[in-house]
Amino acid sequence: MLSTPLFRTVLAERLSRIRGVRADPPDVVVCAGTVAAVSLLARALRATGHTAIGVEDPCWIRLRPSVEAAGLRLVPLPVDDRGRVVSALADQPDVRAVLTTPAHQFPTGVVMSPDRRTELLDFARARAGVIVEDDYDAEFRYDRRPVGTLQAMAPDLVAYVGSTSKILSPALRLGWLVVPEHLATAIAELRPSVDLGVSVLEQLAMAQLMRTGTLDRHLRSTRARYGRRLETLVAAVREHLPSVRIGGIAAGLHVVARLPPGCPEDEVVAEAAAQGIKVLGISQYAVGPRSPAPALVLGYASLGERAIREGVAELATIEQVHRPPG
Amino acid sequence: MLSTPLFRTVLAERLSRIRGVRADPPDVVVCAGTVAAVSLLARALRATGHTAIGVEDPCWIRLRPSVEAAGLRLVPLPVDDRGRVVSALADQPDVRAVLTTPAHQFPTGVVMSPDRRTELLDFARARAGVIVEDDYDAEFRYDRRPVGTLQAMAPDLVAYVGSTSKILSPALRLGWLVVPEHLATAIAELRPSVDLGVSVLEQLAMAQLMRTGTLDRHLRSTRARYGRRLETLVAAVREHLPSVRIGGIAAGLHVVARLPPGCPEDEVVAEAAAQGIKVLGISQYAVGPRSPAPALVLGYASLGERAIREGVAELATIEQVHRPPG
Repeated sequence: MLSTPLFRTVLAERLSRIRGVRADPPDVVVCAGTVAAVSLLARALRATGHTAIGVEDPCWIRLRPSVEAAGLRLVPLPVDDRGRVVSALADQPDVRAVLTTPAHQFPTGVVMSPDRRTELLDFARARAGVIVEDDYDAEFRYDRRPVGTLQAMAPDLVAYVGSTSKILSPALRLGWLVVPEHLATAIAELRPSVDLGVSVLEQLAMAQLMRTGTLDRHLRSTRARYGRRLETLVAAVREHLPSVRIGGIAAGLHVVARLPPGCPEDEVVAEAAAQGIKVLGISQYAVGPRSPAPALVLGYASLGERAIREGVAELATIEQVHRPPG
Repeated sequence: MLSTPLFRTVLAERLSRIRGVRADPPDVVVCAGTVAAVSLLARALRATGHTAIGVEDPCWIRLRPSVEAAGLRLVPLPVDDRGRVVSALADQPDVRAVLTTPAHQFPTGVVMSPDRRTELLDFARARAGVIVEDDYDAEFRYDRRPVGTLQAMAPDLVAYVGSTSKILSPALRLGWLVVPEHLATAIAELRPSVDLGVSVLEQLAMAQLMRTGTLDRHLRSTRARYGRRLETLVAAVREHLPSVRIGGIAAGLHVVARLPPGCPEDEVVAEAAAQGIKVLGISQYAVGPRSPAPALVLGYASLGERAIREGVAELATIEQVHRPPG
């Protein structure tokens, strides 16, 4: 297996320092990104008797094929303003695993409340289950330090997943996985069936960026830049789209913009695309049959402040046409 | 999916030019190396009704977990000096797929004879099956041009697998797969469950090395160097190990050194390791219960000529102790 001890050592130290993650370097499983990590984990869950997994609804839909290909049934869990609702699983005793984004729910942008965190860990403990924590963008919180990880609270119950996609680039395919001890054997047995490891060049390059402080400097700089872009976006929405509400906390690289009730999300998305503005409707991220309230998912990390202001002004002309009367 | 059109275009052109492989760029599936390619392919075979696959015995054992995890039964096919023996499958009609290394069988080093190539394609055609061609080291043939690919003869029957491991480095995790049309849908459906693609940096770097001719220059240089190392190894074995026979053609980055019958392979390997000489016994590569005739697999690509001569002289002192009397 092509996994360098150096990268795992530097990464374990960093995860501990930044996110409180508890992992010895040899226990860090290096994978080709978050989808690969969840794919491996889903297969390990299936191999250890799981048949289903609760997923936030809406959620990052690119994880769906990995979970389904492993033979796990997806059980959608609604998300409200305190995070996903685990009580929806009360009458489904076969669900013993939940995939979640507690630091910054994707795509709604809410942070999981302390009582929901406790409830979720209690659920996993009661069912001898596991929580899969996708910590995809926690390093981008603009108003305060990010909330800690579930893994730090209960490493025996939580499988932790992270990647370089937000902190550096998705063009690297580099992610990691730290699993509870009871899953370690299944993961170790399945790992060689996936590939022989991840690019050694990228592991060594990331180790270098991490241990020299270069990554932290880069993050300080991008955090400031993305924070300004978020402020610009929020201000532009207030100015041009007064009937639209921005949801979620000041974090991450995207926001959800709630459209007025009855506004046809798909038409707004299509007309925006025709104007050269790439936005996605939140219905793209739905898991269950329930259609979410109309909203746009707006990524702002790669846009300058002027492009953000112009894009929102353009969106406003489209939204006005489709705003229900009254 | 993070796969750059540029890399697939340059790669398809190169595979056509060097190996006669027939593939349109959009049909090239980019994977994290050979294990990842075979893993995907094995899952596609399982999804399209295959339950078993014939594999050469001995073979590169690192592919075994991928195939088994996909739920395919491994059926060992003996290898003789003309390649693997497909007639062993006559009484097993459920086997409709064969994984093979026709240009240079791993590890025995034999090249598949023309009649065996025809026989293999006839087998696949008769059973509506598929041949998986692992073209792992075909660019290293020292005495003549490498034999062509099976895929060039029958793209409708052959899935072609290659990687950068021998032509540049296994530290890159970059491989490719070209499948017959009847498997394309299953592959396309399964691909997103594996990962979101392979490092874009490595794809762009490889595209650059390929299209500028840098890779070809590198291969001309390494081919000359490895050819000299092989000659040195063969000469040293003749001098120091007269009872040992080097098998296979003048190709690749390793040879099989057949020990005298009755020589205890495992003891020779263990004592060599104790002397700091890393060799593997051919029994490491066995698939079926049949124990292969004692032999050592000797990799020479990363050793200088002096180290090769010294290593063989050292091996000779060990082999002499274990040579059966007579």
